[in-house]
Amino acid sequence: MRSFLVVGHKFRGDINLNDLPGSGRIDVIARCINASIFLSHDIRRDVIFLAYFPQISARIKIDSSRVKYLNPDERSTAALIRNAIIKMDDEEICSSPGFYVKRESFREVIEEIKSLGRIYYLHEKGEDMRGIALSDKSAFILSDSVNFSPEEEKMILEFADARISVGPRSILASHTITIVHNELDRRGL
Amino acid sequence: MRSFLVVGHKFRGDINLNDLPGSGRIDVIARCINASIFLSHDIRRDVIFLAYFPQISARIKIDSSRVKYLNPDERSTAALIRNAIIKMDDEEICSSPGFYVKRESFREVIEEIKSLGRIYYLHEKGEDMRGIALSDKSAFILSDSVNFSPEEEKMILEFADARISVGPRSILASHTITIVHNELDRRGL
Repeated sequence: MRSFLVVGHKFRGDINLNDLPGSGRIDVIARCINASIFLSHDIRRDVIFLAYFPQISARIKIDSSRVKYLNPDERSTAALIRNAIIKMDDEEICSSPGFYVKRESFREVIEEIKSLGRIYYLHEKGEDMRGIALSDKSAFILSDSVNFSPEEEKMILEFADARISVGPRSILASHTITIVHNELDRRGL
Repeated sequence: MRSFLVVGHKFRGDINLNDLPGSGRIDVIARCINASIFLSHDIRRDVIFLAYFPQISARIKIDSSRVKYLNPDERSTAALIRNAIIKMDDEEICSSPGFYVKRESFREVIEEIKSLGRIYYLHEKGEDMRGIALSDKSAFILSDSVNFSPEEEKMILEFADARISVGPRSILASHTITIVHNELDRRGL
């Protein structure tokens, strides 16, 4: 089981499918979903993907073992996110197969991902991933195009088991997820 | 200098920005451009990206050192590809800053990428990239969601210096490019 939590800081709940970057950079989240779940002509069946949107206290969960109707492109993925957000409530709702949505605090979503495995906080200044032991139940936390606030980071560090990096350059969140998967694939985890 | 050639087998020249997968899987090419060029809040300035579309004998070249108006999302990238294809001629045309388009044969595009560096043919059954020497002028050839035809593969192997893989799983073309960059970044190439 591999889990990812990506925080979409700019998203306020509205999605214009013809302007995903202008919709609170929901294109970033769509690409992170692509990177988390897709293989060539197949999907990874052992992934939990969480997106958290602090501006609207929304948590989306994708359970890849149950997902249907998910395609690799940004627009169709954003349409599934839009559908989930429209249905959001205090109780968890299944908005489409494998997609779940709920109103939650940031602490609650961190506690949720903590229950899924060892937490690795992805950070440019973290320890090189290639040099450290990784669990077969790993949960990775990363930000979108905006850095975590000091309050968010404090909470992440309270729960994180390690702070790791994937390489020497500062890269996009979706690319980071791809490299994490590759390292875990190589180790057979 | 790092170069990538991705062959888009299904693309016939028409792009509907509201249906990129239905436009000959141009979403795949857009994501490969994203993976080739973008860093976090920056772009890589040492990349030549080539896309070749055999059904219309079209070759697009992106010179990242000259590119402007390129954003990470699929739709705006597809709009730049559409603009290039509309302007295609036998002579090379600069369709927008850093974007160049030309009618060419597959052999011509292979010869073009050969002039840019050592050619590494990315293939699931290739030798593990982590175990081999890589040049600081490397050119990588990979396919979209469709395998190369026997004729295409024969021509690639005629020019390729090595056949390499990035890991044990069969993954998307854009994800492969991300992992290639990470390995080169780590080696300081």
